[in-house]
Amino acid sequence: MNPDRLTRQLAFVAELDRLKTVTRQTLLADSSRPENDAEHSWHVAVMALLLAEYAPAGADATKACHMLLIHDVVEIDAGDTFIHDEAGNASKAAREEEAAQRLYGILPPDQGEVLAALWREYEDRATPTALYADALDRLQPIINNFATQGATWHSNHVTADKVRELVKRIAAGAPALGEYAAELVEEAVRRGYLAP
Amino acid sequence: MNPDRLTRQLAFVAELDRLKTVTRQTLLADSSRPENDAEHSWHVAVMALLLAEYAPAGADATKACHMLLIHDVVEIDAGDTFIHDEAGNASKAAREEEAAQRLYGILPPDQGEVLAALWREYEDRATPTALYADALDRLQPIINNFATQGATWHSNHVTADKVRELVKRIAAGAPALGEYAAELVEEAVRRGYLAP
Ligand SMILES: [Ca+2]
Repeated sequence: MNPDRLTRQLAFVAELDRLKTVTRQTLLADSSRPENDAEHSWHVAVMALLLAEYAPAGADATKACHMLLIHDVVEIDAGDTFIHDEAGNASKAAREEEAAQRLYGILPPDQGEVLAALWREYEDRATPTALYADALDRLQPIINNFATQGATWHSNHVTADKVRELVKRIAAGAPALGEYAAELVEEAVRRGYLAP
Repeated sequence: MNPDRLTRQLAFVAELDRLKTVTRQTLLADSSRPENDAEHSWHVAVMALLLAEYAPAGADATKACHMLLIHDVVEIDAGDTFIHDEAGNASKAAREEEAAQRLYGILPPDQGEVLAALWREYEDRATPTALYADALDRLQPIINNFATQGATWHSNHVTADKVRELVKRIAAGAPALGEYAAELVEEAVRRGYLAP
């Protein structure tokens, strides 16, 4: 065992704890509080395994699971950017790239490079695996928003058109789940959870 | 696509949200609040990937990651049983078995059986993969307890002997990590984080 290697790995493990304090716009399904990035990452990582049969040809569901486990780690430094926040999204890439340098730089270089590459594959949304992971990352907040009768759709003045754009991304990474999400969104409009 | 199958899978996904409300004895590293089972599961699942090189011969780190993602799902019904609560631990197995029947029964049977088997392999601690997963599940609270200067060791009157027993389980599933944990525990005693 190389003690410096283990020290770096465990420093990264300790740093990861901070993802539990990064809060998102989405609420828990019971509306009790905002969700945090760590528990969100857990939820979508489990979904990657459970819903693997809906992944597109060429996608690797296990890799998508691992991708989703680390997809938000950069938010330890960069914070969560709400998907409907246009100003925040303009500066997001630069802030997250800097965060990736620092955070993955804590690890032994070989391992930091593997994780940073996995994160970049996710960010690029160019492979079937990344598209599948992205679909789940878009689907989970819609499920929770529906469960909370549209809590954060209302508080952020999100309209159905915006959510239908996200549904296209779900359909691109998992067609059957896109179909399900489309129905859920129309039902949310009918019930008044989401402004038409 | 079989709509009933997808309905059952998404009902399980919705049910999983409740794991975010099951709290543990361990605090976050910044002492701000108790950790919940979902974010704990995320933390140890990432550790399974990061620390794979310390897994024993015959362990499958990817499978350990998946095992850790679901290892606490039964606690949605059964609640978290503190590792040093002897009365709670006596009834734990029966309560968790009942929970597994109900929760994994939400899924399509083929999938429910796979997940229940993965959980039982973890509970039995008889395979190298389960021993590795168990080691990480024991190590993470020690790291967080050290970070919080022994907050839940103090509040639960846990002594060093009890924690040294857990370190043996870490050593059984990942010898190098057991060595690290043993040093951390002795340092915690020296600093007064843990009663000798
Ligand atoms: Ca656990």
